[in-house]
Amino acid sequence: MGEINYHDYLQLDKILNAQETESNKQNISAHDETLFIIIHQAYELWFKQLHHEADSVVEIMRKPTLNDNSPELQTVVHRLNRMAVILRVLIHQIDILETMTPMDFLDFRDMLRPASGFQSWQFKLLEAKLGLKFEYRHGKEYYTSQLRTEHIDLIKKAETEQSFLQLVNTWLERMPFSPSPTTLLNVQDSAKGPSRWEGEGQSFKTEKDSFSAQSAAEKAWDFWSDYKKAYSNSLAEAEKDNLNVFDEVFFQQRESHYTFSAKANRAALFIMLYRGYPMLQTPFQLLNNLLEIDEQLSTWRHRHMNMVHRMIGTRIGTGGSSGKDYLKAAADKHYIFKEIAQLTSFLIERRKLPQLPKEIEEKLGFADPGPLPAGRGKT
Amino acid sequence: MGEINYHDYLQLDKILNAQETESNKQNISAHDETLFIIIHQAYELWFKQLHHEADSVVEIMRKPTLNDNSPELQTVVHRLNRMAVILRVLIHQIDILETMTPMDFLDFRDMLRPASGFQSWQFKLLEAKLGLKFEYRHGKEYYTSQLRTEHIDLIKKAETEQSFLQLVNTWLERMPFSPSPTTLLNVQDSAKGPSRWEGEGQSFKTEKDSFSAQSAAEKAWDFWSDYKKAYSNSLAEAEKDNLNVFDEVFFQQRESHYTFSAKANRAALFIMLYRGYPMLQTPFQLLNNLLEIDEQLSTWRHRHMNMVHRMIGTRIGTGGSSGKDYLKAAADKHYIFKEIAQLTSFLIERRKLPQLPKEIEEKLGFADPGPLPAGRGKT
Amino acid sequence: MGEINYHDYLQLDKILNAQETESNKQNISAHDETLFIIIHQAYELWFKQLHHEADSVVEIMRKPTLNDNSPELQTVVHRLNRMAVILRVLIHQIDILETMTPMDFLDFRDMLRPASGFQSWQFKLLEAKLGLKFEYRHGKEYYTSQLRTEHIDLIKKAETEQSFLQLVNTWLERMPFSPSPTTLLNVQDSAKGPSRWEGEGQSFKTEKDSFSAQSAAEKAWDFWSDYKKAYSNSLAEAEKDNLNVFDEVFFQQRESHYTFSAKANRAALFIMLYRGYPMLQTPFQLLNNLLEIDEQLSTWRHRHMNMVHRMIGTRIGTGGSSGKDYLKAAADKHYIFKEIAQLTSFLIERRKLPQLPKEIEEKLGFADPGPLPAGRGKT
Amino acid sequence: MGEINYHDYLQLDKILNAQETESNKQNISAHDETLFIIIHQAYELWFKQLHHEADSVVEIMRKPTLNDNSPELQTVVHRLNRMAVILRVLIHQIDILETMTPMDFLDFRDMLRPASGFQSWQFKLLEAKLGLKFEYRHGKEYYTSQLRTEHIDLIKKAETEQSFLQLVNTWLERMPFSPSPTTLLNVQDSAKGPSRWEGEGQSFKTEKDSFSAQSAAEKAWDFWSDYKKAYSNSLAEAEKDNLNVFDEVFFQQRESHYTFSAKANRAALFIMLYRGYPMLQTPFQLLNNLLEIDEQLSTWRHRHMNMVHRMIGTRIGTGGSSGKDYLKAAADKHYIFKEIAQLTSFLIERRKLPQLPKEIEEKLGFADPGPLPAGRGKT
Repeated sequence: MGEINYHDYLQLDKILNAQETESNKQNISAHDETLFIIIHQAYELWFKQLHHEADSVVEIMRKPTLNDNSPELQTVVHRLNRMAVILRVLIHQIDILETMTPMDFLDFRDMLRPASGFQSWQFKLLEAKLGLKFEYRHGKEYYTSQLRTEHIDLIKKAETEQSFLQLVNTWLERMPFSPSPTTLLNVQDSAKGPSRWEGEGQSFKTEKDSFSAQSAAEKAWDFWSDYKKAYSNSLAEAEKDNLNVFDEVFFQQRESHYTFSAKANRAALFIMLYRGYPMLQTPFQLLNNLLEIDEQLSTWRHRHMNMVHRMIGTRIGTGGSSGKDYLKAAADKHYIFKEIAQLTSFLIERRKLPQLPKEIEEKLGFADPGPLPAGRGKT
Repeated sequence: MGEINYHDYLQLDKILNAQETESNKQNISAHDETLFIIIHQAYELWFKQLHHEADSVVEIMRKPTLNDNSPELQTVVHRLNRMAVILRVLIHQIDILETMTPMDFLDFRDMLRPASGFQSWQFKLLEAKLGLKFEYRHGKEYYTSQLRTEHIDLIKKAETEQSFLQLVNTWLERMPFSPSPTTLLNVQDSAKGPSRWEGEGQSFKTEKDSFSAQSAAEKAWDFWSDYKKAYSNSLAEAEKDNLNVFDEVFFQQRESHYTFSAKANRAALFIMLYRGYPMLQTPFQLLNNLLEIDEQLSTWRHRHMNMVHRMIGTRIGTGGSSGKDYLKAAADKHYIFKEIAQLTSFLIERRKLPQLPKEIEEKLGFADPGPLPAGRGKT
Repeated sequence: MGEINYHDYLQLDKILNAQETESNKQNISAHDETLFIIIHQAYELWFKQLHHEADSVVEIMRKPTLNDNSPELQTVVHRLNRMAVILRVLIHQIDILETMTPMDFLDFRDMLRPASGFQSWQFKLLEAKLGLKFEYRHGKEYYTSQLRTEHIDLIKKAETEQSFLQLVNTWLERMPFSPSPTTLLNVQDSAKGPSRWEGEGQSFKTEKDSFSAQSAAEKAWDFWSDYKKAYSNSLAEAEKDNLNVFDEVFFQQRESHYTFSAKANRAALFIMLYRGYPMLQTPFQLLNNLLEIDEQLSTWRHRHMNMVHRMIGTRIGTGGSSGKDYLKAAADKHYIFKEIAQLTSFLIERRKLPQLPKEIEEKLGFADPGPLPAGRGKT
Repeated sequence: MGEINYHDYLQLDKILNAQETESNKQNISAHDETLFIIIHQAYELWFKQLHHEADSVVEIMRKPTLNDNSPELQTVVHRLNRMAVILRVLIHQIDILETMTPMDFLDFRDMLRPASGFQSWQFKLLEAKLGLKFEYRHGKEYYTSQLRTEHIDLIKKAETEQSFLQLVNTWLERMPFSPSPTTLLNVQDSAKGPSRWEGEGQSFKTEKDSFSAQSAAEKAWDFWSDYKKAYSNSLAEAEKDNLNVFDEVFFQQRESHYTFSAKANRAALFIMLYRGYPMLQTPFQLLNNLLEIDEQLSTWRHRHMNMVHRMIGTRIGTGGSSGKDYLKAAADKHYIFKEIAQLTSFLIERRKLPQLPKEIEEKLGFADPGPLPAGRGKT
């Protein structure tokens, strides 16, 4: 291997010779078309990087035996954080495009029809990988109408594979520390007859529940019953309906348009509630980073919408869409991780949290870490 | 006058002793309440600064004899730009609040009822001064329900006074370079019978129109007729309906819920089209800064909404509102300068712009600036 | 307790009535003095918040029995991160001040003498708490010349107390997993005669070394010898001198102007090298956040310097200093956590890292974490 | 011309297939090398855009007959502003690279030798175009040592052509409104004997001075004498030496290492002092944008330096440099527009400014702008 040259290593002959303006071809002066091309190329480069990160975290989460004790979960957290940092820069980048005034854009806008900024297959593919289902997209047909067949196929394929959101659901479901709702079911049974989630209760008996096989003492730890009471107490009168949603979210068979099962929701809430314990810190950061990514995506869509509105008003976009309206509908709808976000509604104050049994606490805290040198690890 | 001391000059004894937490009063540990107080105080300080700027630009624009040739219009542009810069920082500041997790907030959230972040009278007053009419606010009653009478009165008073948006309308209406639509009306008269804006056409005869009294030659300059044809040609088939909106915006008596008259709209569009001329550069920057401010306000509301959603989910906000829904409706609705933004829909390509008569060009370019030294000012 | 009112809760009567301009007192028009006051008040509010966070992390780290297994270390990491987020906003805030042109500043600049932006006792106190020693400050005398006695006293007191940097040193020194250099010393003894750090080697025998008392098997784990070889191999010819620095940093009695002992440096490097292990993830984040804070402080100082230069050129600052030069010297010198930053020089490639003994790996979080439910935790 | 396809238009087949990692070639796992490539490609794309803007403003300023009354000067201001906006994003982008830890970088760092981030010929070429002279570069030889001959030639060629800074100097020199120092010279002659800038005074007689040939009345307008007195009065005792620098900057033959002549400095100062006048607003914005660009470049270099330090400590960079030290020296030295920045030192308070003669005021844009319609333009 010879010496590496910066210019060659970065393949700058390709990168810096990939800007050919339509206005130039047509011998019309349109200074800002170069900006239009370069900013979109910069976006696509970063989208490629986002895929690089997304693919890597999907691959890690896909392993059936992901060891939460290993560095791998930490790697997932680190790379999700990087995705959020990249998205922040992509939002900031809109500032540059906004230095192009509507009149500057008009200099070349009509030459681009029907191309448009919306037609990034990489962006749509990214949404699909993360967990945006095709059937919930705004304007489905339109969405892929301008894409090459090969890129549509990539997106379709991603939609059939397990999304990152689904992998998070599976990971949450096998979360070992999350208490089972079994005893809550019993309580409910006597209190108000056959519970609606009986079916799920049955299935709990067959799954390897965290504590179901452990001891009678633990069975008596009726976490969810305690928690539901505490949550109920925390509600203002006008909020009492939330209790029904609570049951639906945490104990019922979820409808097909949800990705998270009740079991996964319970685990996620448990993580949020007890995030201080060492074993839950990384899982908490993972969930939090997903919310961060969703928020950045949301802000990106919002600013993109405003920018398009400022640029072309109510005219039809270069992609044939009515511009702002389409973008607004997509921005309002495409929260990929909203099922995680809504769990916030079910938190209660830390000082009212049920105390965890000592045995659980030890597991969450790496327990006794063995013979350590003096002066450390003892309280 | 003695020596100025930094600490005293900034009145830091006041500023740094204005943080008293409810959790402390109640002997409950809630580390993040201090952050909650300080960030809102920082917001309010900046809102005061925004008022300082807004008041100054209102005062300048209110002068009946504002000389556009004077430094004053430049001062308006400069201060509007500062407002946009401040708003950018206020948006960024949300990042800090987002380091407070929902559980951290719950530590003291219930102690604050019914106070909430929405209850900034300074922010509402600012919206009113800039031009948000009370009747178009989302959730009017709720909006002032938590305010002190004295602050409600301030807002009500601002709503009766001329808003900045109205002052911009007046300024645009007396814009001296904007061509009159008189001849266009004639053309339309013969082409399709009595025009709908006949009434307005009449009033034009009584107003001191830019060029109406000048010369027969100028009368022959049928700018708006030419422009409308060029605009019509620029429309795709699916956009042809825009022509009706064009007529409505630029030539009809506007309905009462609009702030801008047809005449002001024409002047604003003219400025956008011919912004390169020296006399129109500062006016263009003024309009552009208003769009910038609206966009920053929009992003602020959007991020605020997302932040609240992340913080309290679908629970009722500390202000008693249902949180996200209220904020979303307000964010969708409260574009103060949307009448300027929509003018973008009516622009055409620069190279298809009607050529301005030489006499007008001279006025827009400061004309012959008199005996200048050689080597400058001549093309 | 009655209802909380937003305006009262935030003590806005105090906050919003603490801006009295000198220009107003002197009946001179200086529109931007209000901005000057408000931005400094916003800075001071945030400095108070930074103290709130700094005090809390100092308090946690001061506990002799800080349990790294508890939520507390995670809390330290979280709050240090918040400090970095705040500093980012403070840097951004400079954009606002830069909308004030030099001529705008001159409108009131002379009225402020000798007050100046440098005279924030809160900022100096913060630096002291974090670990900037007074004797290494640039321009010591000048630094406190404009402060009130009570504030000077606060700073002096902070300088006598344990800084956060010193607490980190202590925490690193008792880090339980960091291997001892004992056997390395032996190797060196035979290999190249009396080592330069012999004296320190003696003292090692008396300190409670992590593994010194454990077993012969462990004694044989000659980590530092292995590591030094690997590091030596990684050096280019021109870098060979780094080996001496390596010895100095990790094995010699440090001179008094260093805060970190050789032992702390070893622990910190070990954390950086093996940060993937669960037990080291939070410690790594702690160290990384300190570097982040230092970098933000550095950027703040740098931008502040540039801003001052742009504002007053080479004239004497309102604080009597020569402005840019002073700030430049301080910015170049005041890296509080530079001892951590320099450890980067001693890292080697991950794939050349010495393999940790199984027993250590188990302690660091791999290994069988005890009886867990099936389907989790097994590789 | 057929329909434009987004993917083809942006040449994404090139852009997205230009990332080939060395680690992949060597079958070594180094996840972050893709990030390293993509971020540098994104930088280079933006550097290309910066050149697109720089070339266009150079072309405009190069015209011997640039009409300041035309839209062109406004275009220069607009594009310089865009360059500053781009630089802000480039600075922000460093955040992304900082998510790569030193250990992550080490995974592939040695494979890149001797390539490095410093070796961007586009960046060096940009500096040269703007006005950084080769002889004042830090580490000249090193600077081009890794570049291809063709790129070195581009840089060398740019260094022989007129830089933007030189074009600004020429433009300032022909600035028509700037008063001549002739009469000041006379005053000085009698007051303190032969002035040091006599030689230059002679040359003034041969140049086409703004007002030298106009009238006796104007000759009597002794602007610079008045201004110097006012400036002198504004100096604190400790600042009195500034008077010598004042003379040097504004009235002496400048030494060869300065780009700006005394005449250009006078014009630039005059613009800063009287920027409120319509004719000076755009020139002021031009100068201000140059300071903004310099400040952004400075911050970019500073953060780059800190990032490199954090990444590789004191080790030798991939480019063979000692990393931080080189970058620090370059950052301290490479202020391209420092001659403009230093003029700030010579401003005085607005209320002490000499009143301009009516004739000058009229030229600067006040005065009667000719027959305008009623209701506008009159005070």
